[in-house]
Amino acid sequence: MKRRSLLLGALGAAGTAATGTAGLILGFAPPPLKDSIPLVLDPTLAGASPAGWMYRELNASVVADSAYALYREGSCMYATFGGILNQLGQEFGEPYQSFPVHMMKYGASGIGGYGTVCGSLNGAAAVVGLFVNEKSHRNAMIEDLFTWYESASFPMYKPGTDSEDIAQSTSDSVLCHASTTKWVQASGKRIDSEERKERCSRLSADVASRTVVMLNEYSRGTLTQERRVSDETAGCISCHGETGKMGAVKGKMSCTSCHDTSVGHHIFADAHYQNYEWLHPKED
Amino acid sequence: MKRRSLLLGALGAAGTAATGTAGLILGFAPPPLKDSIPLVLDPTLAGASPAGWMYRELNASVVADSAYALYREGSCMYATFGGILNQLGQEFGEPYQSFPVHMMKYGASGIGGYGTVCGSLNGAAAVVGLFVNEKSHRNAMIEDLFTWYESASFPMYKPGTDSEDIAQSTSDSVLCHASTTKWVQASGKRIDSEERKERCSRLSADVASRTVVMLNEYSRGTLTQERRVSDETAGCISCHGETGKMGAVKGKMSCTSCHDTSVGHHIFADAHYQNYEWLHPKED
Repeated sequence: MKRRSLLLGALGAAGTAATGTAGLILGFAPPPLKDSIPLVLDPTLAGASPAGWMYRELNASVVADSAYALYREGSCMYATFGGILNQLGQEFGEPYQSFPVHMMKYGASGIGGYGTVCGSLNGAAAVVGLFVNEKSHRNAMIEDLFTWYESASFPMYKPGTDSEDIAQSTSDSVLCHASTTKWVQASGKRIDSEERKERCSRLSADVASRTVVMLNEYSRGTLTQERRVSDETAGCISCHGETGKMGAVKGKMSCTSCHDTSVGHHIFADAHYQNYEWLHPKED
Repeated sequence: MKRRSLLLGALGAAGTAATGTAGLILGFAPPPLKDSIPLVLDPTLAGASPAGWMYRELNASVVADSAYALYREGSCMYATFGGILNQLGQEFGEPYQSFPVHMMKYGASGIGGYGTVCGSLNGAAAVVGLFVNEKSHRNAMIEDLFTWYESASFPMYKPGTDSEDIAQSTSDSVLCHASTTKWVQASGKRIDSEERKERCSRLSADVASRTVVMLNEYSRGTLTQERRVSDETAGCISCHGETGKMGAVKGKMSCTSCHDTSVGHHIFADAHYQNYEWLHPKED
């Protein structure tokens, strides 16, 4: 049970009685993203990518195997990006063949070991950037991929039918250090263990193959965006986000993975809100 | 005053008396990173980048102006990466000229609006990935750049001598949503305001020009790494990190920007520690 739902349950009665302070905790109306009509991403509306960078359909399983193997050469971002680009180069030649794939080693362990965004996601988003010209389509595909990553149990990929199962975990975050530490907690293995590297190489295969499935559908004109940020995150964004009254935050990452949404955070919400309304009036 | 120092001050006496529980709060010895000899990054030891991708010296001011202008075309990652690559293409032709710079639009607002790593840093690190073949050099340069970003007041760049000053802020984070919200708090402007975009376009110029200064020095063989993670972060890493007893976390991001290091977090540190020692014994 999520901390937030727990809190709302416990505060239900008090909240209804004391609408003044608790109103902001209970009173918001998250946009009904889950029930909205899926967004059809029609590539014919987007125009060609500059310099003729066009995606061509690939076999997702072949790419997954390639990404898994590439991980040992240059880590996660290199694995996901290279798994897709190398395959394009092998099957279709130029311009794919000449892309300097080696550069993507920079994204290892959340960019140079810094622990920020998971490199497999950075690599997948870079592929989307290379082939998807229309910003709203790019962002929809990235949202789809990133929200899937936050809630999926990794790894799913197995390098062979007789390969060992390894522990799975859900990250609730797209950040490398959070994702890997969640796996450390689930598996009981150390972060510097061989098993953790195996987990990340399998995860890179998972992300690469999902990206290919998505791009294949996009190139056929059959991709829809059905997966969006959780209602929980949408609730936070509805006030704090760029179209909200506060207009202070831009992002779609799972908020509660880091931020406390307990009573302490919102107890003075009215005063806080007034303050922000003064600071950041939404212009009509 | 940082939360952590404040806490250590308040707990000093009690900590000394009750070494059993408080020992782990007060007793760690962060590695003396700041006093260590600067790491000379000698490019002659690194070997050439694959496929002849070699950096050539640029004028940092010219690149800053270009990055500032490019922001309006494709946001932060595109601005920083394109500011450098387009200039290389203009001055030196191929292979720089044919690089598909358009792809870097994916990094906008922390990757497709998701709010993860600041796009200007993602772009700068991608440039480092393209030209720096040796992993330890890449990681050192990224650490230098990212720790600088966490502690610097942005923006510094001005698009002209008579252009308006805008509010500055320190982010204590390399994440887009944290960095921009800190600026919103400092400036009193909304996240969706024209001024916030102006701030991010100037910041992109700052990051691009610093990256060029760093790469110029690297290509001359005069670059040293003197800037590393803060002692505070080094302290956390010394236990939690991959070479620490717990071995549960990999990363260099400022820990206290998100994580609570108050008594509540460490009060049961001994039990926690034992638990982790059992879970993650450091192999000899």
